[in-house]
Amino acid sequence: MDTDPARRLAVTAADVAAAQERLGTEVRRTPVIRIEANQLSASHPAFWLKLESLQSTGAFKARGALNSLRATTIPPSGVIAASGGNHGQAVAWAARLLGVPAAIFVPTTCPEIKLRRLAEYGANVTVVGDVYDESLAAAQLAAAKSGAAMIHPFDQVLTVAGAGTVTSEFVEQVPGLDSILLPVGGGGLLAGALAALTGSPTVVVAVEPISARCLGAAMDAGHPVDVSVSGPAVDSLGPRRVGQLCFDAVLAQGVHHVDVADKAITAAQLAAWNELRIGLEGGGATALAALLSGAYVPAEGEVVGVLVTGGNVDLPALLASAAHTS
Amino acid sequence: MDTDPARRLAVTAADVAAAQERLGTEVRRTPVIRIEANQLSASHPAFWLKLESLQSTGAFKARGALNSLRATTIPPSGVIAASGGNHGQAVAWAARLLGVPAAIFVPTTCPEIKLRRLAEYGANVTVVGDVYDESLAAAQLAAAKSGAAMIHPFDQVLTVAGAGTVTSEFVEQVPGLDSILLPVGGGGLLAGALAALTGSPTVVVAVEPISARCLGAAMDAGHPVDVSVSGPAVDSLGPRRVGQLCFDAVLAQGVHHVDVADKAITAAQLAAWNELRIGLEGGGATALAALLSGAYVPAEGEVVGVLVTGGNVDLPALLASAAHTS
Repeated sequence: MDTDPARRLAVTAADVAAAQERLGTEVRRTPVIRIEANQLSASHPAFWLKLESLQSTGAFKARGALNSLRATTIPPSGVIAASGGNHGQAVAWAARLLGVPAAIFVPTTCPEIKLRRLAEYGANVTVVGDVYDESLAAAQLAAAKSGAAMIHPFDQVLTVAGAGTVTSEFVEQVPGLDSILLPVGGGGLLAGALAALTGSPTVVVAVEPISARCLGAAMDAGHPVDVSVSGPAVDSLGPRRVGQLCFDAVLAQGVHHVDVADKAITAAQLAAWNELRIGLEGGGATALAALLSGAYVPAEGEVVGVLVTGGNVDLPALLASAAHTS
Repeated sequence: MDTDPARRLAVTAADVAAAQERLGTEVRRTPVIRIEANQLSASHPAFWLKLESLQSTGAFKARGALNSLRATTIPPSGVIAASGGNHGQAVAWAARLLGVPAAIFVPTTCPEIKLRRLAEYGANVTVVGDVYDESLAAAQLAAAKSGAAMIHPFDQVLTVAGAGTVTSEFVEQVPGLDSILLPVGGGGLLAGALAALTGSPTVVVAVEPISARCLGAAMDAGHPVDVSVSGPAVDSLGPRRVGQLCFDAVLAQGVHHVDVADKAITAAQLAAWNELRIGLEGGGATALAALLSGAYVPAEGEVVGVLVTGGNVDLPALLASAAHTS
């Protein structure tokens, strides 16, 4: 793979720093907790855990959304996003904060609880299409008509720069981190991390569910390709093709890539609830799963950080399913 | 009330500092998060929240238990505690950590999940008595017979000193705290906080559910008295009489005392889940409830800290009950 460090990144550390300024106090500085060896499951090393699942809207997406809205001249027709998930929530939340209209397009599979939250944020919700791509097409059509600003979930510079603030915060909170494990869906979080860590000795470990590995497939093929996706993290890590910004950043800087089994993700969600009493969705627990399951084994003495990125889980369903299978 | 500051406290700041040394890394330094105004519910001031619900065993009781066991010469027959709740879990956990036998006496009302956890910690569990006092009597009898060390849930110096480390950590993590809101059951946490804050400008606000106010009743009467207890926090804040160590410390140093309504406690539990995706039991959410409900109104510019102390909640039941009543 081409890992020429001189290749220019589309998103820079300065973009991330500017995002941090823009976010102010409305985005929470999420806390970090030290976990000693074997505290969450039978056999894992000690590590630092950043609890981004405690973020406003329950996921790191709040950062990219608010950064995008604050740095954009919002037309009178407001903003538009296509997402039944965390990005849609984040755009609706940021729009309410700034007092601008938000139109969110969601597929028919969007669960009741997320529809209710979107309504609570005051968003104008359109349920259209059986799959995400159909909602996206409808949103793009509506944006073209109304002139509203389309906010992409991961492949826009402002979204990526906002997402990068999770990582810049983490290295501030725990000086001397050797590695940061984070999950990859469309790659906004990863691209932001690589931007934030430009010139830093801290390396990124990109973790994907074996059932939704659009980055892994792109790295294998040498360019982004479509993959089929499924599994316990598909609601947040479900893009079928990795973002170009992310892929270019990976080419330029390189990352260590790890796949985790679906079972390991569910086990990490259960460990987080049973040992820490925090809710994590599948995607939110994916990086943690890599460490707990041994899919990623740090070197002797490596100071490891793990990002848990989202807490929007149906916990009663998770616990009922675990009781059923145990 | 007698608030002579010269009156000697039974537990000192030095006891708390010694406990902190003893606890080492096995007790987690639980994280703190800044919450801006109105982020968790309609109308509350900004504050700092210490997430002690993320502690090992899910509650601050781990601190007192481990401190007690590490500072005590444990007889070959091990340790004994009477508790179907967080203290029993904590003693069992600490005993496993030190490799000593633990016998835990629980009433017949002890839920299945807590029995299972006690078994996982390797404790020898005896189910005896319909109420706590009967389990306690059986435990005392067993301790007298076997010579095992009885570990009291709140009215022992080592328990109180261990509990005090939550507060000493909090003021280290957030310099300049003007007040700390914390819940009171038997008063171990409060007594520890008063010890930790000796000579500090930070004041303590003691919060009790209106349905379980053994400290409030003692302050009214001028001495500890028995009260009847019920409500959403009774499983962790259910002692019928406040501990003498706590009451003496309150007489010596004084505290601001606040009652909260049962409904406010449940609302705080729901706010913690809906906005932060963390599980809190009723007692764990009681101090938070005082701030969110307006039962405690800080002064202009007051830097407020809130302790959430336990996460051992049946979350599916809480959510089902909320859906039923909304």
